Amino acid sequence: MSATTRDRFLGGRLTLHQPKSGYRAGVDPVLLAAAVNARPGQSVLDLGCGVGAAALCLGARVPGLRLTGLELQPGYAALARRNAEDNRLPLDVIEGDVAAMPPALRERRFDHVIMNPPYFDRAAGTAAREAPREAALGGAVSLDIWIGEAAKRLLPKGYLHIIQRVERLPELLEHARARLGSLQLLPLTPRPGRDSQLVILRARKEGRAAFRLHAGLVVHDGETHDIDRENYAATIRAVLRDGAPLPFPE
Amino acid sequence: MSATTRDRFLGGRLTLHQPKSGYRAGVDPVLLAAAVNARPGQSVLDLGCGVGAAALCLGARVPGLRLTGLELQPGYAALARRNAEDNRLPLDVIEGDVAAMPPALRERRFDHVIMNPPYFDRAAGTAAREAPREAALGGAVSLDIWIGEAAKRLLPKGYLHIIQRVERLPELLEHARARLGSLQLLPLTPRPGRDSQLVILRARKEGRAAFRLHAGLVVHDGETHDIDRENYAATIRAVLRDGAPLPFPE
Repeated sequence: MSATTRDRFLGGRLTLHQPKSGYRAGVDPVLLAAAVNARPGQSVLDLGCGVGAAALCLGARVPGLRLTGLELQPGYAALARRNAEDNRLPLDVIEGDVAAMPPALRERRFDHVIMNPPYFDRAAGTAAREAPREAALGGAVSLDIWIGEAAKRLLPKGYLHIIQRVERLPELLEHARARLGSLQLLPLTPRPGRDSQLVILRARKEGRAAFRLHAGLVVHDGETHDIDRENYAATIRAVLRDGAPLPFPE
Repeated sequence: MSATTRDRFLGGRLTLHQPKSGYRAGVDPVLLAAAVNARPGQSVLDLGCGVGAAALCLGARVPGLRLTGLELQPGYAALARRNAEDNRLPLDVIEGDVAAMPPALRERRFDHVIMNPPYFDRAAGTAAREAPREAALGGAVSLDIWIGEAAKRLLPKGYLHIIQRVERLPELLEHARARLGSLQLLPLTPRPGRDSQLVILRARKEGRAAFRLHAGLVVHDGETHDIDRENYAATIRAVLRDGAPLPFPE
């Protein structure tokens, strides 16, 4: 992971070193971070933080957060530390496995847990060429474990936010429902009227509110892709360019 | 259940006798029936058919179906038989409990199962005043049993369609995922941008396709309710007034 690029996020508010090949942060961790209802001074744990994209986007928007990231792969963890330092954001990166929570984290509780776990079940998909990319895209750890570990790390009334591909929604809801409450689902719709490809789930520890399904948030305006312009819908553009929050409906 | 009304459905294509008080069929069974991809000559089982609204709406749209309904309450079953006869539609109504499948059904398999099971968990809600209405609105039978029995009654590659309140979506997906495949969810959105209140789930026996989340189908145009007019969106109006199908996206 010696070759890296330096990429601008949030209209340049944040710059991130990323591996040139392998898993690279795109729009998803930015949208995840924008959905988190964190208040200044709260604590946040990013499970599987990669190069720190989601945690650092959140830290760039909400001042005074105490950010912690857990990352399995030393190369990504090193980049996350470098990114935190370069952007002067307080992200403490711990190397370790979600499925074998390091002792440093086992006794701690957080106001928020965020995660963007691997999108594909390794058993079901084709392995990516590079090993680190494979681990980041299609993990060996099941969603059950990701959500179970997130639930354990949350303070009472703390929030989990997770972004995930829609194919895994039934599995995601099953595990979230077993461990957490007050589930709210925000589908991301690529274009008006299309199927959702991604969802953001908010869940609350000890929450007792009924499940809510929000209207799909349209990512791109227009029916087709105009290759000459980046036609993000206004809400999404405000998140990506101006670092705006992505509020869940009240 | 002696006092009944005679109500028009599908722009008058169908008339149904219903109890004057107690559970009365509204828009939901009509939308459920409109979503079913049944072809002429196929067999359909309506679990908990009530006065036959969903089964008869489907029979009025698709010619040559062989329709069977299972209904627990003798009063509703009698009305369903009367409604089938009055509308000259071939609905065979069997009295019995979904949780104790009658022998007449236990050996049969169908191309389609449809259901509009009770919307509220009886343990969690307030009991309705009238006992029949209570049984129809908040049943003692869990979604697990409804879906398990539906799955058993389906032919290989047969379809289940179910309409249900969004609050029960996590539970619904959990049980559907355990017994069936190729799940597709169509949320019904009361107005543009609002949370969904109802969902229609399509699932297929032995289906292996990935889960799909379709864009929410808007029921009412406009942001607020205009009490002077019935402002259904065009797609919904075509279903309710003209007996049109409600196609799932391809």
